[in-house]
Amino acid sequence: MERQTEILLPIMFYDTDCGGVVSNIAYLRFVEQARTALVTVLGVSLTDIVQAQEFPAVLRTEIDYKKPAVLGDTVRVEAQLEEVKRARFWCGFTLLRDSDGTLLARCRQQCAFIRLPEGLPVPVPAAWRTSESSTL
Amino acid sequence: MERQTEILLPIMFYDTDCGGVVSNIAYLRFVEQARTALVTVLGVSLTDIVQAQEFPAVLRTEIDYKKPAVLGDTVRVEAQLEEVKRARFWCGFTLLRDSDGTLLARCRQQCAFIRLPEGLPVPVPAAWRTSESSTL
Amino acid sequence: MERQTEILLPIMFYDTDCGGVVSNIAYLRFVEQARTALVTVLGVSLTDIVQAQEFPAVLRTEIDYKKPAVLGDTVRVEAQLEEVKRARFWCGFTLLRDSDGTLLARCRQQCAFIRLPEGLPVPVPAAWRTSESSTL
Amino acid sequence: MERQTEILLPIMFYDTDCGGVVSNIAYLRFVEQARTALVTVLGVSLTDIVQAQEFPAVLRTEIDYKKPAVLGDTVRVEAQLEEVKRARFWCGFTLLRDSDGTLLARCRQQCAFIRLPEGLPVPVPAAWRTSESSTL
Repeated sequence: MERQTEILLPIMFYDTDCGGVVSNIAYLRFVEQARTALVTVLGVSLTDIVQAQEFPAVLRTEIDYKKPAVLGDTVRVEAQLEEVKRARFWCGFTLLRDSDGTLLARCRQQCAFIRLPEGLPVPVPAAWRTSESSTL
Repeated sequence: MERQTEILLPIMFYDTDCGGVVSNIAYLRFVEQARTALVTVLGVSLTDIVQAQEFPAVLRTEIDYKKPAVLGDTVRVEAQLEEVKRARFWCGFTLLRDSDGTLLARCRQQCAFIRLPEGLPVPVPAAWRTSESSTL
Repeated sequence: MERQTEILLPIMFYDTDCGGVVSNIAYLRFVEQARTALVTVLGVSLTDIVQAQEFPAVLRTEIDYKKPAVLGDTVRVEAQLEEVKRARFWCGFTLLRDSDGTLLARCRQQCAFIRLPEGLPVPVPAAWRTSESSTL
Repeated sequence: MERQTEILLPIMFYDTDCGGVVSNIAYLRFVEQARTALVTVLGVSLTDIVQAQEFPAVLRTEIDYKKPAVLGDTVRVEAQLEEVKRARFWCGFTLLRDSDGTLLARCRQQCAFIRLPEGLPVPVPAAWRTSESSTL
């Protein structure tokens, strides 16, 4: 099972602000797109999520902004599953300008699967943990 | 019962784009804030909506952009209930620069209350229709 | 020169709202992504836009919401250049559920190129008009 | 000079997602609204920022999500200037459900003022540092 993926995102007008660069919040949308792609690569479809009503929730985000992206850039987001505990997992993200590999931002997110509407955490899929253990 | 309201919204960085002006999509967020305030003034609270699972849904939006708002502006959104049918209603919105009354945009939205998850329309609150009839 | 294009967009969590369906505002982001792709197909790159400081601006949007998209759907947005005047042009958009072709929404936008910071309209690229004339 | 402020934000439909709770990204918009209010309280207006072309930029965000907000809630964001260096400053944010004081999230952001288009950092306003020194 792949534990990483990457996506390419051209910058849109609505990603930028009047400083002429991409808004700090837009990068979190890019990260969410990459996390969604990563979860899919890890074998959990969005349709599964809705049917089980077990949603991936972000518990903590850390993001460091290094260089600004601008309109005309395409951002490459590399996402990987970094660490898996029984009921929590960390994902890491590297955001790069695709044309020249310039580092734009780094992000980590601690996540959990939460069953709604109760709001109770459920175990991370077993395959994610097994695979993780075997690589440590 | 009041059939109109207004709200004041200072422009945020994330409302603007790299053209230096407020993004066309941001105005729809302003309209949604005004529509939410209007529905509340009309006696339907957000808590009621969630409990009844009968959500106001937009069926059609028309918006004309007249002058751009910029960072530093405060936008005044005037909202009113314009027309009420059995299962549909129209809201009208005027967006103005608060400092000098410059017209920024005009918007109309046709809406309905939809019961979820079935997706079926439900009647508009009777008080909205009665009141409307009496003014025509 | 192509006068139409299409894009595919998987629905993200942040596109949906607590009604369980895609928010009316999210469709305008989909439309903007398609319009950006269309302008590129028509020979105007985002880098050109920034260098010339001549930005495509939306003057009017009309959108009709037909059926809701949900998480797990992929939306196909078909965009085309519909009409070109000296300083204004109309784009049309059809939004479909990709899996079964269900019509989700239709949108039209009247646009212009605006030179900033003056805010003055500039002529639509000649090639767009010529091509358009020849097809009428 | 006040070094803290607070704002009240009613939850909008577009802040929520199909999990029924406020999206992780929406909280960053709340934080940005509070940071903008804080900068104003600290004596820097948005109009000043645009005229000087010296923009507050976020260098790092840390946010911990504790409890979810839902439609019908009003979020109170308490913002304060926590630490000031020559060219960087930290802001802290506490997000609470206004009705009962439940802690929803905590956030810290490291920021700088950046002169555009050069992208060079400029000193934090002297008054912020002086005031800060006197309290340590």
